[in-house]
Amino acid sequence: MALADLDAVERQVFGDRGALGLPAPYLLFLGDTTEPGYAKTAFGLRDWARERCVGELALPGATVSTGLPRMTTAQAAAAGAKALLIGVATPGGLIPEAWLSTLHGALLDGLDLVSGMHVRLHSIASLREAAAHLGRRLVDVRDPPADIPIASGRKRSGKRILTVGTDCALGKKYTALAIERGLRARGIIADFRATGQTGIMIAGSGIPIDAVVADFVSGAAEMLSPDAAPNHIDVIEGQGSLYHPAYAPVSLGLLHGSQPDMFIVCHEPGRTHILGHPHYALPSIEEVIALTIACGRLTNPAIRCAGISLNTSKLDDAAAATEIEAAARRLGLPTADPVRGGADFERLLDACAA
Amino acid sequence: MALADLDAVERQVFGDRGALGLPAPYLLFLGDTTEPGYAKTAFGLRDWARERCVGELALPGATVSTGLPRMTTAQAAAAGAKALLIGVATPGGLIPEAWLSTLHGALLDGLDLVSGMHVRLHSIASLREAAAHLGRRLVDVRDPPADIPIASGRKRSGKRILTVGTDCALGKKYTALAIERGLRARGIIADFRATGQTGIMIAGSGIPIDAVVADFVSGAAEMLSPDAAPNHIDVIEGQGSLYHPAYAPVSLGLLHGSQPDMFIVCHEPGRTHILGHPHYALPSIEEVIALTIACGRLTNPAIRCAGISLNTSKLDDAAAATEIEAAARRLGLPTADPVRGGADFERLLDACAA
Repeated sequence: MALADLDAVERQVFGDRGALGLPAPYLLFLGDTTEPGYAKTAFGLRDWARERCVGELALPGATVSTGLPRMTTAQAAAAGAKALLIGVATPGGLIPEAWLSTLHGALLDGLDLVSGMHVRLHSIASLREAAAHLGRRLVDVRDPPADIPIASGRKRSGKRILTVGTDCALGKKYTALAIERGLRARGIIADFRATGQTGIMIAGSGIPIDAVVADFVSGAAEMLSPDAAPNHIDVIEGQGSLYHPAYAPVSLGLLHGSQPDMFIVCHEPGRTHILGHPHYALPSIEEVIALTIACGRLTNPAIRCAGISLNTSKLDDAAAATEIEAAARRLGLPTADPVRGGADFERLLDACAA
Repeated sequence: MALADLDAVERQVFGDRGALGLPAPYLLFLGDTTEPGYAKTAFGLRDWARERCVGELALPGATVSTGLPRMTTAQAAAAGAKALLIGVATPGGLIPEAWLSTLHGALLDGLDLVSGMHVRLHSIASLREAAAHLGRRLVDVRDPPADIPIASGRKRSGKRILTVGTDCALGKKYTALAIERGLRARGIIADFRATGQTGIMIAGSGIPIDAVVADFVSGAAEMLSPDAAPNHIDVIEGQGSLYHPAYAPVSLGLLHGSQPDMFIVCHEPGRTHILGHPHYALPSIEEVIALTIACGRLTNPAIRCAGISLNTSKLDDAAAATEIEAAARRLGLPTADPVRGGADFERLLDACAA
């Protein structure tokens, strides 16, 4: 494919999974976003790769903020930033016309561009030409590798944990990152496996699973967590939900290809409907457990739910504790908010390490 | 994307769904195939578009045949053929090196090339250059449209029937084609909706669903069967199986986006394992019904199984009748082999028309 040639240089960089070589530190670009759920990338980088973020830039009308210093592209370049990183998503993954002058300004001010959106920076002729003229890089993190095989279904060695969800954008990546760190703190060899643009930017490696052609999604998930030592644990970042009217195929391919021994159901108490789909009621955690096992046992008959991760970021301490205790009692499973940590989270880690 | 530009001419042709404008009649190319399951395209064209096939061409070593006259590319051109059509699939969708001299010979002898494989004819530089030099067309049927939206999950008007399966390559396309014709013979307004390369070649329209990027599969399925009159029936060609270790995401997206009112489970009696995956036992029809309802009710809570389609092509009449009767009794559902037709098939059509 012609795209493969265009991106050959970036692909080589991404090929070395241990050292991504993204141009950092970043200025986080928030566009004109008013919905915090669309700013997962910016929040993820702030929370898990703070040392690589110099500040943020938002357009008039934006109400979302990471709390990092606000800067122009020129100020960010002067402060040492190497790239403007698009930190928000849009419905359909399009880059709005209204963003283009800022992106061009960033190139003029000496910054590269980093994006994880569906629409590629390279596909926008004016950006491609400006970058070539100025000697800047356009890095499309969402381009999957070119050599993904059809899934074999063969059982691989090592252990795997997958985070799944009642919806998008409620903590699957944070949960996987926190579990990896928690397991490592206990001396267990664990690796976070990134499947989305933010995770890849944080981890420096991974496969953008939702950008893979449908026939190859399960194969991509197999590629992501290869054979490993028997006591090695891969903690795989989930995507979407089996109950999502648009993204369930991504979730299913990731489930089949990951062949997880255990999964963690991620949920946000109080969320009643699928984000962006107000006619779709959120499934219960029990429904997600049942359907995940019904589908997941195809490639790993021993699959089981290790516990529940609740995103209680909108609750105060007392309300969060009440929600966590109620879910743990109702479901009979270790339940925690990994961001809050504490004894609940240690019990969830016990289950993951068992 | 650069590919979109390369294929702009072909996309325009495909854009007019009513009149595909493929260069016909065809010479069916069988490669060196020895596995009949990989020759679905050639068999489908022979059985459903016989008038557009002048003959077949196979390489030494091939054991598969459509029974059509064997011809060289020069003989086919003299007999009026307009294109060499690749009538076989390969694991992973690659075009073997060993085929290239035949493909080049076809171009030299005056034929266009038509392919539904994952690897695009346009991506092979030598073919692209030869076709440009000779003024021939390279038609990649598997290139999906460029404007597929994210699925909305919105309920559409009209009725929909989807064929699903216990595996790949056992009759989902034939069943859908036979049901469309059977309903039309009863005066019901029905449309076959093609989702694979062969179906698209037969119908002259459709979307190659397994070539769509995973995030957009459900959206593509929504696009394929738009709002229609309340009594209109779309009969949608299924793909893969929810129990397939590689292709289940395609099946799930097609199920969610099609939001079928009814589905037909297609099965081949005697098949014990997933084609090409000998470590995967075939699911039972009962399991497929249960999981199809468990997943499908997300976008259509009224989904139900209308009946069973058995592929009895390897059985004699008596054995076929025994299998059909046994399945009908065990499952309590109309059961037929649509290729055999008869009273069994009329009962299946009754259920579809109900």
